[in-house]
Amino acid sequence: MKTRDKILFTSLLLFNEEGEPNVTTVDIANEMDISPGNLYYHFKGKDVIIQTLYGNFETELTEILKAPTDKALSIEDSWFYLYIVFEEVYNFRFFYQNLSSLLQRNPALAKKFKALLRHKQKTTSTILQTLVDNQVIIIDDLQAIEICENINLILTHWLTYASLQDWPDNQVIIIHQGVFQIMSLIAPYFTEDYQHIYQELRILYQQLLSQNR
Amino acid sequence: MKTRDKILFTSLLLFNEEGEPNVTTVDIANEMDISPGNLYYHFKGKDVIIQTLYGNFETELTEILKAPTDKALSIEDSWFYLYIVFEEVYNFRFFYQNLSSLLQRNPALAKKFKALLRHKQKTTSTILQTLVDNQVIIIDDLQAIEICENINLILTHWLTYASLQDWPDNQVIIIHQGVFQIMSLIAPYFTEDYQHIYQELRILYQQLLSQNR
Repeated sequence: MKTRDKILFTSLLLFNEEGEPNVTTVDIANEMDISPGNLYYHFKGKDVIIQTLYGNFETELTEILKAPTDKALSIEDSWFYLYIVFEEVYNFRFFYQNLSSLLQRNPALAKKFKALLRHKQKTTSTILQTLVDNQVIIIDDLQAIEICENINLILTHWLTYASLQDWPDNQVIIIHQGVFQIMSLIAPYFTEDYQHIYQELRILYQQLLSQNR
Repeated sequence: MKTRDKILFTSLLLFNEEGEPNVTTVDIANEMDISPGNLYYHFKGKDVIIQTLYGNFETELTEILKAPTDKALSIEDSWFYLYIVFEEVYNFRFFYQNLSSLLQRNPALAKKFKALLRHKQKTTSTILQTLVDNQVIIIDDLQAIEICENINLILTHWLTYASLQDWPDNQVIIIHQGVFQIMSLIAPYFTEDYQHIYQELRILYQQLLSQNR
């Protein structure tokens, strides 16, 4: 691994573990056992590191968000898809955990982050419409807006919310739980056949939870 | 107003407006036109100010959370009650906007904050049970847990989520919208009579929204 990539890797690790505002470039250099001067040669300050990491996150998440808009998703596919979105957010969770101060400090980043959020909202809206078209759920236009907003709120803040609970530190379970909370939002709107599939998924999920708690 | 109270008032204002990590004690002293030494005489550092502000928030919110557990709430009462909870969170929103780094830095505060979150969850759970007992909504025990989690996620993160949108900066509307998003969670579970009341509230809310956007 090149020094530049190592710096990015170590920064991401420390930001996620300790919170971005609590980590300095000197901490990053110390963790890597390189001089602050060497780090500075590659990145002219912490904000440049953050912007580069954000660029990576943006590229990856945009790819993921493009996927489902072309084809119809089953409930199982939707679950899997939401899991992948959450996993991506988890890998770069420091952005979400200290969002306000980060964006207040960095207007360029704020603009990009808001654009990504709108992309998420658009994808969510498309998925919901596909579920309606395929008679998986029955909702009116106003309900679609309300549900879309709550789904995006969970996508954006679930991991921070989970970190405030005294839950075991199990990434897989916490992500599944986030997916399940989203599924529970649309549960009452499933048509009869899908209500049945949902109940089966719910039982599987409860088993997963009880095995891991 | 005494200097001590003025410091708390100014700190809260700056923390809310600019984000706590972006505000130093020197910024607070400058804003008040007093010397950093004078500020230090009253508070030995920013973390002491934050702890004192948190104490005030905790006392006020605990009072509010005690209220509804003794009596049955109508839908309108619930709306009004949720509005008051959100307003309290809004007044101290800097805690919620940079929660992770604040709690990572301050374990004593983290413990208190988590206890307060559990108090919120308990109150939410009690309100849901009261609504079930009074046949306002029909949900089973598992659904109660799922809904309770989503309500608390909205209570905790709605204001941060709202700040990421390009919505007009209107506190009253944003809080009403948060209340409405919570109401939309339990909407599908209302019994017939209450479904009717909910639809009326929804129309009133849509009018409010269109008048203010």
